[in-house]
Amino acid sequence: MDKKVKVNASILIIGNEILSGRTQDTNTSTIATWLNSIGVSVAEVRVIPDVEEKIVETLNFLRSTYDYVFTTGGIGPTHDDITAQSVSKAFGIKYEPHKEAFKILENYYDKGKFNDGRQKMAWMPENANLILNPTSGAPGFNVENVFSLPGVPSILKSMLGGLKNKIVGGQPILSQTISLKTVESEIASAITEIQNKNKDVEIGSYPFFHAGKLGVSIVLRSEDQLKINDCSSEIKDFIKKKKIEIVDR
Amino acid sequence: MDKKVKVNASILIIGNEILSGRTQDTNTSTIATWLNSIGVSVAEVRVIPDVEEKIVETLNFLRSTYDYVFTTGGIGPTHDDITAQSVSKAFGIKYEPHKEAFKILENYYDKGKFNDGRQKMAWMPENANLILNPTSGAPGFNVENVFSLPGVPSILKSMLGGLKNKIVGGQPILSQTISLKTVESEIASAITEIQNKNKDVEIGSYPFFHAGKLGVSIVLRSEDQLKINDCSSEIKDFIKKKKIEIVDR
Repeated sequence: MDKKVKVNASILIIGNEILSGRTQDTNTSTIATWLNSIGVSVAEVRVIPDVEEKIVETLNFLRSTYDYVFTTGGIGPTHDDITAQSVSKAFGIKYEPHKEAFKILENYYDKGKFNDGRQKMAWMPENANLILNPTSGAPGFNVENVFSLPGVPSILKSMLGGLKNKIVGGQPILSQTISLKTVESEIASAITEIQNKNKDVEIGSYPFFHAGKLGVSIVLRSEDQLKINDCSSEIKDFIKKKKIEIVDR
Repeated sequence: MDKKVKVNASILIIGNEILSGRTQDTNTSTIATWLNSIGVSVAEVRVIPDVEEKIVETLNFLRSTYDYVFTTGGIGPTHDDITAQSVSKAFGIKYEPHKEAFKILENYYDKGKFNDGRQKMAWMPENANLILNPTSGAPGFNVENVFSLPGVPSILKSMLGGLKNKIVGGQPILSQTISLKTVESEIASAITEIQNKNKDVEIGSYPFFHAGKLGVSIVLRSEDQLKINDCSSEIKDFIKKKKIEIVDR
């Protein structure tokens, strides 16, 4: 793929526990950071409940809209894990035991311990490609541009490395952060002007209150390092003129 | 409103910093926990970029689908804060200086310090209702069933209390958690059976790995405490029979 092409993705978090507030999602940040590092920007995230109809409908929208879709959650052994059957339905393909996944799981568990619940984790969309799981055996899977990963953050993290060759990214998205000892409203109009002059750099402004420090982080994002540098120089000229202090963050 | 009615909401997180992975969203969990406590369940969360067209389109879908919509982010003084103008556009109403918000901000800042950036924070959809901000002055606002809050978690938290009278919840959603020293696949089929017999209780199963402990939390959720109790008894009978240990979590 042409490295100049922009590649995007969406993340679909499946799980009532996130919607109830009981569990704090951290997978979005993990996946998004990793995708950015390989030149894929995340265009949208959705969190939906463990409801088959909602998963099918959302998945069919996302997979036809974005280059890649990453789902998290719902691939374990219990009754509320319905991602694999929902992905099968979304693609209109069979949901059936996956031979290779079955073998992996059979080997992973001690003799006599490969019970029904564990066997359920080998059920996948027909001809799915496996995503290996170095942490706890049960693999994830991918069908076309949809990649299904588990919800447990430590297991999900351990599986991303194995995905690298399956994702074709575009131009990596570069970024630079300048943190300032100021408040947003002191710099807002200057940053607006600089943004208007530098259309190819996305400038974000984020107030922070951290460890007793109050300030603003200006984040510059672009595929083009030279354009980031130009934009950064303009910001540094302005803050020098205004005697605003740069701080570590 | 009839307390038996189910009331739902969606949360719309607006901000490139969440999609890039740079910032970990915590507002979803804060808002969802609070909403559950007043009888509103969160049906869907979306995270989208600071792009007007996308905000307008998403907002119009969510506000016509769910009882309430809560937006976070994009109501500050900088160029990338475009939530207020996007909400105005979604409703097809004017985006203009809000008299009361203007006064609040004018009083909040020292004389001569109420600059253009700060004045921008008084621009809102015509006739918006203010959501007061006890932390940093700048109010949020609401139009019909859409409530716009800031993105900074500590400020957002401080504003939820003031919303209580504006949200009419349904029957509060009750929950009970039973944490077990086991793995999901050991209990999967029993829990499936119990779920099938207890359709009005939503049973979730969540593995945990925390502080050297490995286990599964079974979460029972329903508007009806008696049904939770029945379901809980069945689970406790099963784990007693199987000699599975209950643990603190």
